[in-house]
Amino acid sequence: MTYPDTKNKGKGESGGQSAKLSPKEDFSQWYHELLMTGEIIDNRYPVKGMCVWFPFGFAIKKNVYGIIRQLLDPDHQETLFPLMIPENEFMKEAQHIKGFEEEVYWVTCGGTTPLEVKLALRPTSETAIYPMFKLWIRSHADMPLRIYQIVNTFRYETKHTRPLIRLREITSFKEAHTVHATWEEAAEQVEVAIKRYSEFYRRLAIPFLVSRRPSWDKFPGADYTTAIDVIMPDGKTLQVGTAHHLGSTFAKTYEITYEAEDGEQKLVNQTCYGISERCIAALISVHGDDKGLALPWEVAPVQVVIVPILLGDKEKVLEVCRDLLRILQQAGIRVELDTSDERPGAKFYKWEMKGVPIRLEVGPRDIEKGVVTVVRRDAEKLTLPREGLAQALVREAERLQAALYQRAEAFANSRIREVASIDEARAQTEAGVALVPWCEKEECGHQLEDLVEANMLGEPQYKSFSPAACAVCGKLTDKRTYMARQY
Amino acid sequence: MTYPDTKNKGKGESGGQSAKLSPKEDFSQWYHELLMTGEIIDNRYPVKGMCVWFPFGFAIKKNVYGIIRQLLDPDHQETLFPLMIPENEFMKEAQHIKGFEEEVYWVTCGGTTPLEVKLALRPTSETAIYPMFKLWIRSHADMPLRIYQIVNTFRYETKHTRPLIRLREITSFKEAHTVHATWEEAAEQVEVAIKRYSEFYRRLAIPFLVSRRPSWDKFPGADYTTAIDVIMPDGKTLQVGTAHHLGSTFAKTYEITYEAEDGEQKLVNQTCYGISERCIAALISVHGDDKGLALPWEVAPVQVVIVPILLGDKEKVLEVCRDLLRILQQAGIRVELDTSDERPGAKFYKWEMKGVPIRLEVGPRDIEKGVVTVVRRDAEKLTLPREGLAQALVREAERLQAALYQRAEAFANSRIREVASIDEARAQTEAGVALVPWCEKEECGHQLEDLVEANMLGEPQYKSFSPAACAVCGKLTDKRTYMARQY
Repeated sequence: MTYPDTKNKGKGESGGQSAKLSPKEDFSQWYHELLMTGEIIDNRYPVKGMCVWFPFGFAIKKNVYGIIRQLLDPDHQETLFPLMIPENEFMKEAQHIKGFEEEVYWVTCGGTTPLEVKLALRPTSETAIYPMFKLWIRSHADMPLRIYQIVNTFRYETKHTRPLIRLREITSFKEAHTVHATWEEAAEQVEVAIKRYSEFYRRLAIPFLVSRRPSWDKFPGADYTTAIDVIMPDGKTLQVGTAHHLGSTFAKTYEITYEAEDGEQKLVNQTCYGISERCIAALISVHGDDKGLALPWEVAPVQVVIVPILLGDKEKVLEVCRDLLRILQQAGIRVELDTSDERPGAKFYKWEMKGVPIRLEVGPRDIEKGVVTVVRRDAEKLTLPREGLAQALVREAERLQAALYQRAEAFANSRIREVASIDEARAQTEAGVALVPWCEKEECGHQLEDLVEANMLGEPQYKSFSPAACAVCGKLTDKRTYMARQY
Repeated sequence: MTYPDTKNKGKGESGGQSAKLSPKEDFSQWYHELLMTGEIIDNRYPVKGMCVWFPFGFAIKKNVYGIIRQLLDPDHQETLFPLMIPENEFMKEAQHIKGFEEEVYWVTCGGTTPLEVKLALRPTSETAIYPMFKLWIRSHADMPLRIYQIVNTFRYETKHTRPLIRLREITSFKEAHTVHATWEEAAEQVEVAIKRYSEFYRRLAIPFLVSRRPSWDKFPGADYTTAIDVIMPDGKTLQVGTAHHLGSTFAKTYEITYEAEDGEQKLVNQTCYGISERCIAALISVHGDDKGLALPWEVAPVQVVIVPILLGDKEKVLEVCRDLLRILQQAGIRVELDTSDERPGAKFYKWEMKGVPIRLEVGPRDIEKGVVTVVRRDAEKLTLPREGLAQALVREAERLQAALYQRAEAFANSRIREVASIDEARAQTEAGVALVPWCEKEECGHQLEDLVEANMLGEPQYKSFSPAACAVCGKLTDKRTYMARQY
C-alpha cells in the first residue's frame, strides 16, 4: 500500500493538507485539525459521535492493536461474541445495568416487524459473554480461562462527543475476560493486566499514571477498578485502560460455577480489562507537535521516507534512491520513496505531518561521499554511511524512541505536583494533576471533588508516601489520591 | 496460544469431544456437530442467527482473512466506516432499499430516549460509505479509489438460520468498494475482483463456479453481478463471493462526481465486492470428513502435532520430541507437542478432529532409526528422516494441499452435468449442478426456475459452448446457465 495515494482524501471544507495546523498550545483545535490533516479520522460522517477511519489512520490502529495482540496472545485466546444482547440477559445484573442503562442503544425492529425481545447493542460484553461462560466452565480444570475480543461497542453519549475520545461507536474496544477459581487468583490477574498495559504504553513511548479508582467510580458490578491515565497536552487526563476485579458478582447472576476438587459447586471469580481507541488519541496527542503527527517507529505505517534531492545527475540520484528503497524493504523496514513532482520542502512538510520517524535525503553530494542525510522526526539531523544503513536506522529508531519518551515524560512530570491543601489542589488541577493527601474516607473524597472542582483518579499504585494531613479532615495519612480534570 | 487449553470448552448438552460425529453423508447433522466438536462456533448464544466464535474457530478465521488481506493490500486500502446509517441516507437509493428493507435492523432508542432519526444497522455499507466518497472524490486524480473493510453486518433473516451460512449477524464481512472514472474501468475491476477471489479459493483448495447472475438476481442497484459458488457435500451450492458493477447508480443518488480533465463534472463509476464467513463454511464442508475437520496447511492454527509414543526410555522420547518442537517452531511452523495424559489413540482422534494437516509420531524405534513417522490428515503415512525435517514437512504440506484439491475437484466434477431438458435438469439438481442450455430470454429463465424447481446461478464465465436448444423455447443458443438448489 502506498500512502501517497491518500493524499487528497482528507480534503474538504474543514481540512486539507495545504492547511496550516493550529499550534499545539491550542490543543482542542490542533487535535481536531490533525485528525483530518494527518488523515487519521474523518469526522464528517452524518451521525454525531461516529467516525470514519482514513486508510492511514487505520494502518496506525492496526499496528497499535498488533502490539496488544502480541502482549495478550501468549496466554489469552482471541474470540468473538455477538454484538446484540437480549434485553432479559442484559437486565439481569442490577448494579451493572444501573451503570449503563442511560447509554444503551436498543434495536427494536427487524425490517418492519417489531422484535419480540428488544436487543441491546453491547456497551461492553459482560452480559453477552458470561451466559456462555456458564456453559463453558464445568470444573477447576477449565480455569484459568482468559479470552479477549476486539469489537465495536456502542454508548449513547449525551455529553459533547470527541473523535477517538468520547464516541457513540467505539470501533475497536479490546476487552479481555478471565475466570478463576479464587478471589486471589483474580486479583493477581488484575496485576498481570496492568503490567501488560504498562508494557503496551511503554512501547508507544507514552508515560502514564496507575491508580485504584475510588469506590464510587469503579466499574458497575466490580469489587475494585485499577485504571491507567495519560496526561494530555492541556493537563486534563484521559483514561486509557482499566482492569476490574469482578469478584463473584456476575458469577452469582449468571450462575457460573465449577466443581471444586472436593466435589462441591463453587462460584467462580472473574476479571475484565479493556483498552479502546483512546490509546490512539493519547498516541497522537502526546507525541504530535506543531508540524503534525510524530509516530513511534513500531506503529508508524511509514517508518522511513526517502526524498531524492534532484540536482545534477538526476537519474543517478533516483537510481541510488531506488537501491536504498530495495535494501531497506528487504530489511523489513516500511519505507516509501517520494518521487512525486513536489519540491523537497513540500515533501518534508508532508511527511513530517504524517509523523514519519526518519527522513532520508539523498542528493549528489551525499552520493559522492557515500552517505545519506538522516533527519529524525524530533529534528535531530545526522549523516550515515550508505553501507550498513538498515541496521544503523534501526539503532537510530531506538534513540528516537528514547527521545520521544523522555520528552513526553518531562512534560508529564511538569504537570504533576504534590499539594497539601484544597486551594493548592484547585490551582494545580487547572494545569495538570494534583497529588493530594486523602484519609480514604468516602466523605472526605466527595468533599475533595466538590471543593477542588476536579475528579479523583484514586490512589497511586506501586508508590508509597510519608504521612501528611488529609486535605479535608486533617487526619494524618500515608495515602494520596491523584486529582485532575478528566476527559 | 496452546489449543489444548480449549479442550473442554465445547462441552455441553449438544456437543463435546467424546461425542462421535455423524457421518458426513448426513451433511446437515454432520455440519452442526462439527462446528461444535471441532470448536469452530458455539451455536448456543441466546439470539437466533447469532453465534460465538470459539478460540480455535477464530484462529482459523484469522488465518483465512489474512489471505484475503494479502490479496487486497497491494492495491486496496483498509478502512473502517460506522455501523449505523441514518434513515435518510439509507432510504436514498430506491432499488437498493427495496432489496434490503425487509432485512434491516433498526435502532430506535438511545437509553430511554427515542432517537430523532432512526439508525439502520448496515446490511452492507454502500449507503454508509458513498456519502463520504462524495467528499473524498474531487478530480480524476483521486481515482481509482479502492478501499475495503472487514466488519460485522446485520440482516434480519426470517428464513431458517444456519451457522456461518445464514446469519443475522455476519461477523466478518469483507466488503471492497472502488471508484473509477469510466464504466469500462469499473468492469475491469470486477474482473480483477473475481481473479483475486479465485486465487483466494485456490489457496483454500476449494473448487468453485463463476457465473454471471441473471438480471433478476443481481445486487439491488447493480448493472450486473458476477458470483462465485461452491458445491457443498449435499449438492446444493453456496454463494461465497460476489462482485457487482454498480455503474453510476449510486453516483447519481449520492452525487459522487469528479472534474474531468476538460473541466466537466462527471458521475463516477463504481464496483463493490464481498466475501463473508461463508468462506469458512465452505472450507469446513468441502474438506472435512467423518473424522472431523481437515484444514489446509496455510490456515490451520496447528499445522503439525507431535505425539510421543511413550515406550521404553520415556524421558529420551520426550527429549527428542521437545527438540523437534523447537526446530519446527524455529522454522516458522505452527506446531504443538501433545504431552497430555491421554493414550496415543485418543490423541490421534482429537487432532484429526481438529483438522491438523500433519501428525508426527515419535517412538523409541523411530528414534533408533533417526526418523519420525508422518501421518497426513488424508491418511497418507510415510517415514521421514529427522535431519532436515522442517523442509521435508513443508514439501509434504504442498503434496497434501494438492491432494485436498484433487479430492475436492473430483467431488465437484461428479456433481456437475450438462443436461438438455427440463426433466434432466430437475433430476440433476437433486444431486448437484445442472448446466442447461438457455437462450437468455428472461421469460425462459423464469420458466426454467419454476419447472426445474431450482435456482439459476447464471451464465458460466470464461467458458464457451457449442450450440444447443434452449431447454424451454428450443431456440438454438451457445449460452448455458448453471442451475442448482442454493443455500
